[in-house]
Amino acid sequence: MAGNSTGKEFIATSFGESHGAKIGVVIDGCPAGLPFSETDVQADLDRRIPLQKLELFSGRIEKDVAQILSGVFEGFTTGAPICIAVDNKEARSQDYADIRDLPRPAHSDYTARVKYGGFGDPRGGGRFSGRVTVATIMGGSVAKKLLSKFDVDVLAYTRSIGKIKMAKQPSQEGIRSQTYRSAARCPDLACAEKMEDSILEAKKEGESLGGIVECLITNLPAGVGEPLFDALDADLAKALFSVPAVKGVEFGGGFALAEMRGSEANDPFQMQKGKVSTETNFSGGILGGISSGMPIVIRAAIKPTPSISKEQRTVDLAKMENAKIKVSGRHDPCVVPKAVPAIEAAIALTLADHMIRAGFIPKVLGRKK
Amino acid sequence: MAGNSTGKEFIATSFGESHGAKIGVVIDGCPAGLPFSETDVQADLDRRIPLQKLELFSGRIEKDVAQILSGVFEGFTTGAPICIAVDNKEARSQDYADIRDLPRPAHSDYTARVKYGGFGDPRGGGRFSGRVTVATIMGGSVAKKLLSKFDVDVLAYTRSIGKIKMAKQPSQEGIRSQTYRSAARCPDLACAEKMEDSILEAKKEGESLGGIVECLITNLPAGVGEPLFDALDADLAKALFSVPAVKGVEFGGGFALAEMRGSEANDPFQMQKGKVSTETNFSGGILGGISSGMPIVIRAAIKPTPSISKEQRTVDLAKMENAKIKVSGRHDPCVVPKAVPAIEAAIALTLADHMIRAGFIPKVLGRKK
Amino acid sequence: MAGNSTGKEFIATSFGESHGAKIGVVIDGCPAGLPFSETDVQADLDRRIPLQKLELFSGRIEKDVAQILSGVFEGFTTGAPICIAVDNKEARSQDYADIRDLPRPAHSDYTARVKYGGFGDPRGGGRFSGRVTVATIMGGSVAKKLLSKFDVDVLAYTRSIGKIKMAKQPSQEGIRSQTYRSAARCPDLACAEKMEDSILEAKKEGESLGGIVECLITNLPAGVGEPLFDALDADLAKALFSVPAVKGVEFGGGFALAEMRGSEANDPFQMQKGKVSTETNFSGGILGGISSGMPIVIRAAIKPTPSISKEQRTVDLAKMENAKIKVSGRHDPCVVPKAVPAIEAAIALTLADHMIRAGFIPKVLGRKK
Amino acid sequence: MAGNSTGKEFIATSFGESHGAKIGVVIDGCPAGLPFSETDVQADLDRRIPLQKLELFSGRIEKDVAQILSGVFEGFTTGAPICIAVDNKEARSQDYADIRDLPRPAHSDYTARVKYGGFGDPRGGGRFSGRVTVATIMGGSVAKKLLSKFDVDVLAYTRSIGKIKMAKQPSQEGIRSQTYRSAARCPDLACAEKMEDSILEAKKEGESLGGIVECLITNLPAGVGEPLFDALDADLAKALFSVPAVKGVEFGGGFALAEMRGSEANDPFQMQKGKVSTETNFSGGILGGISSGMPIVIRAAIKPTPSISKEQRTVDLAKMENAKIKVSGRHDPCVVPKAVPAIEAAIALTLADHMIRAGFIPKVLGRKK
Repeated sequence: MAGNSTGKEFIATSFGESHGAKIGVVIDGCPAGLPFSETDVQADLDRRIPLQKLELFSGRIEKDVAQILSGVFEGFTTGAPICIAVDNKEARSQDYADIRDLPRPAHSDYTARVKYGGFGDPRGGGRFSGRVTVATIMGGSVAKKLLSKFDVDVLAYTRSIGKIKMAKQPSQEGIRSQTYRSAARCPDLACAEKMEDSILEAKKEGESLGGIVECLITNLPAGVGEPLFDALDADLAKALFSVPAVKGVEFGGGFALAEMRGSEANDPFQMQKGKVSTETNFSGGILGGISSGMPIVIRAAIKPTPSISKEQRTVDLAKMENAKIKVSGRHDPCVVPKAVPAIEAAIALTLADHMIRAGFIPKVLGRKK
Repeated sequence: MAGNSTGKEFIATSFGESHGAKIGVVIDGCPAGLPFSETDVQADLDRRIPLQKLELFSGRIEKDVAQILSGVFEGFTTGAPICIAVDNKEARSQDYADIRDLPRPAHSDYTARVKYGGFGDPRGGGRFSGRVTVATIMGGSVAKKLLSKFDVDVLAYTRSIGKIKMAKQPSQEGIRSQTYRSAARCPDLACAEKMEDSILEAKKEGESLGGIVECLITNLPAGVGEPLFDALDADLAKALFSVPAVKGVEFGGGFALAEMRGSEANDPFQMQKGKVSTETNFSGGILGGISSGMPIVIRAAIKPTPSISKEQRTVDLAKMENAKIKVSGRHDPCVVPKAVPAIEAAIALTLADHMIRAGFIPKVLGRKK
Repeated sequence: MAGNSTGKEFIATSFGESHGAKIGVVIDGCPAGLPFSETDVQADLDRRIPLQKLELFSGRIEKDVAQILSGVFEGFTTGAPICIAVDNKEARSQDYADIRDLPRPAHSDYTARVKYGGFGDPRGGGRFSGRVTVATIMGGSVAKKLLSKFDVDVLAYTRSIGKIKMAKQPSQEGIRSQTYRSAARCPDLACAEKMEDSILEAKKEGESLGGIVECLITNLPAGVGEPLFDALDADLAKALFSVPAVKGVEFGGGFALAEMRGSEANDPFQMQKGKVSTETNFSGGILGGISSGMPIVIRAAIKPTPSISKEQRTVDLAKMENAKIKVSGRHDPCVVPKAVPAIEAAIALTLADHMIRAGFIPKVLGRKK
Repeated sequence: MAGNSTGKEFIATSFGESHGAKIGVVIDGCPAGLPFSETDVQADLDRRIPLQKLELFSGRIEKDVAQILSGVFEGFTTGAPICIAVDNKEARSQDYADIRDLPRPAHSDYTARVKYGGFGDPRGGGRFSGRVTVATIMGGSVAKKLLSKFDVDVLAYTRSIGKIKMAKQPSQEGIRSQTYRSAARCPDLACAEKMEDSILEAKKEGESLGGIVECLITNLPAGVGEPLFDALDADLAKALFSVPAVKGVEFGGGFALAEMRGSEANDPFQMQKGKVSTETNFSGGILGGISSGMPIVIRAAIKPTPSISKEQRTVDLAKMENAKIKVSGRHDPCVVPKAVPAIEAAIALTLADHMIRAGFIPKVLGRKK
């Protein structure tokens, strides 16, 4: 029953439900001396909901205001646990009351009920709401600030929505400057517009869409990644599957590698300006579970939002008989754009932990004057 | 540097290198009272190397004999840690000595050297050898015996090798009876033969192939899976990425879900003989990180073996200049068949841990008479 | 740097400093279905400061009001992480500003400065303040409620203050009814009065006192305690040393056993009403790291409060030379009474974790109607 | 059920029973590049049994020969898990067969039977035998070698046996040169002789003795120790309670501090040769759970050996009635001398872990030429 923490040296513990008092995160193991403030975390929080095209999303547009409750003093982390939280304000709980016994298809309603004996908070999806990624994002904000001190850059973006796909992997600079200019969180703005149109179309039809989120990690030094079970790709994959709706994860060539031959897939090593690199990057920056110094490329498959307004077949768990359900309430026709910052945060948390574990980040960042 | 253990309540710790004295595993947290003997683990070990067509594999055909060193008394587990090990006998170390400074493309040679300062055991791949999966398999043997007491069945098999693919997911019975009749570990024996031919062809050309391993888990009760970061799919994916050469993992519909619409992807619930199930299984048996009671379907993408006999470009790390390498030594043109039991074992270890964590397996299996 | 969590299945994570925004705790792994509310935790918080004789304590008398921020719904735990927090209100930070470079003898000022590079929050002792036990107490409140469902009783009390000692171990009933009637938290009220007098006398002299806190655990079933390193006594001792000022821990006969002979120290087993017990209890209810079913008796030695108003020798860390310090500010002449509920809480947290680990507490407490 | 590992970054996993095939330890997280060989571990193993006066001990004098099974290559640790094991040879199992239903007073027979359902290996105490400390000692050997690279010295010795006590704490040099010259493991050789006489006397009377083991840690830098629950003293105490027969642990002034006043107990800081130290050391080298740079002084109380040849009262667990027992078999009249190296090892394991955690030991010790 205890799985709400991630990391071994940089540990994030998430708490909160969709309609509870607060959603928050506690970071334990952040080195002392990192400049950090509410401005940092607010910037990340503000990217969660695309304000450009609110029609793409559910009715719940919550302006979350992050509060640092501990662990920061005079603008620097102290080495003590950092708790950051937001209040839940926009809670319209009545929307969900009438379907308590009718598990929504492809939702966690049924499995959560089995696991928690029916005691789970049902309001707004409770602990299983996508809103819980707010905690991940706030924790990721600390991680990203820490990584940025060591020049490591984590950039997630939408690679595809439904059948609309970006043709090729964008440049780091393109991702950085363009991603958040589009509501779809796709750095190719023309492609983004098509994605947004397809979401609106799906919404009109009472349907939903999935997609693929890609993440590019640059400047991670070679040598990050622990042995065997705590391989860097293993822990990154684990982190991604904690983001709601992720059903697949791949690195570099990923599933396409299964059809390639060794001579095609093996990235040849080369010397470039006195540094070792590889000519291609089918391995996605990780070899033997350890970073190679090449950019890490990860893709996560996001399933279409389970909540759709079309009528669906389900069961009535009180009467134990077949039933129908029309999911009303607020729901996004496509969660991919909201998943982008959550995935970025989950990856950043994992990288901060692994950078510390591999000895690339010291336990204290200098001495205070 | 400590990542050689997996699990939180059923914990497997792996040790050993390709050419060291022993390869072994310690299982901590196995309930007392489980019937278990060397016969059980030997049966799993014997499935590692396909004896039907040895020409498909490297020259190193080692008959591993498992020894239980602790934790079992008079045919039952005692509750104390179970150590199982095999001796390394077939070690021809000279094969690798001349290429110590030439990292093999797509291998961990380079990253391991960076991480371990050059102190790693280079013989036969050392700790990064595929042979290390012997420890996983022995640990998995305990896990599978434990799971079998609770009727949970874990069956991995080859779904594709290179471009040769099984048309559809086989039945549980078919997998159980046919998989190990083929050297390719594919339950569709006609397809298996084509796979084997393609491996031999690749071998002849100095090439290598990858493929996809699929795993079907049946009878897992609904309600297994911990919250958020320790979601069942998160931990299963993590376990799979600890198996060498895995570059992608997906559940149920997986990456295909990214292109589907909600009404197609949502598995409708239904009552069947008084039990809740779903009509389809695009979610692959896991909802919200918790098992639904439906079969779990996982796929892992395996990259082509990095070791190929064709000449490749690399760097000389002593001279820091570009170089060429022709990997001699023994290597398999396709590791997919050997990956099948390793993946099955990694999954079994994770499931045993999660079954205990979720309370489905008690701490002691009865009282001794 | 990450040590702010305790437990493996029932995990408490503490956050907050003396003068930060909030002090709180997150409990992960509490079974769903436990009746719990703010009333429960408030009752424990209210026992922290003895209101009977405020002159025994520092000027800071804070009425802490506990807020449950997550994990409880309609009066029951949900299985999600439970966050409970209080606001810090009575923060008079200027008291400490002028002694930042003068580490107080026997305080953590010096060691914390070395460890955290001077970035630690210095206000009111920051993360090292005794006030941080508020988090432990709130977490312990959940643990005690859970233990009470299984009839396990944890009762701490003052056994001695300075040289004033209770003659013998009190009865469970005596402890329960009397302990909190005295400001000294000693169930022998006559003895308590002498203790309180000695504290006042020490205070008058600018001195401080230590003492011994004893804890009696009853009704813990036999069989609780994990193997070897996670022995029940090992984890209880660890928990006690996390309470500020604890310098020694012993079980049952404790240090006195070192001078006894086997025939005196060995507790003979006996049958009583069909149950196994022991005639004496020198082992303090734990054998081989596992509970025996007898009451567990633990004692913790508390050192005298380091803050005294007498002038003391120290060093000036800015000038790196010898110096003198007179600690002003608010401080208790004896922290033993405040340590009593903190120790009780630390023990309860450990027991809840071990009860779950040993399988005595299920993962879900029933089904909701 | 999983508690056979200790440490978070330098992790020791113990396996093996008194009469099983092997007893061993796996160290995960030891930095690569540490010179280490079987000679190192053998030296520590050889100190386990005092050969000077074998009459002080049980009949089982086993010459244990340590074998390194993994993790060391060409005289250096590789960064991979280090498995070290010994064979069990001197196993006379029949000694214990007839008392399976008669739990020996003060032994773990009863509690282990309750916990493991009777499946525990009963031969020679099985997993609960003092012989299991062989694994701790072998793991401690790696830890001590690592600590010695950083000049940290861990020296345990007998402080008292029964009522025979060393008058005062010996010098580091005295401990190092004299301790293992006496069978009692007491550096004051005159006192050691009295201790040995008292053990022989107790043996003659069918009795047993306990005592106190003290450990002096020198050169540990200031700043070692994690926050709150993972305080250095908390983890050291936990480690000590995992050594069989330990019933109390104290640091520095320990229990005596409970009776002291602040002005006596507070160690004044002073500058000495440009370094901060304290005039006295009542805090035993730890303040706020963090090392102060002063020597760490720990004492562990050891109870008298439970096995005595005098007849004792117990119960018959098959018949559930009162019974008598005379423990025959081999047993030591005093385990204190054997506990000395075990305690030293347990402490070294904890310190190695904490030195790594605090950043004082890097992840790799240099680069191989």
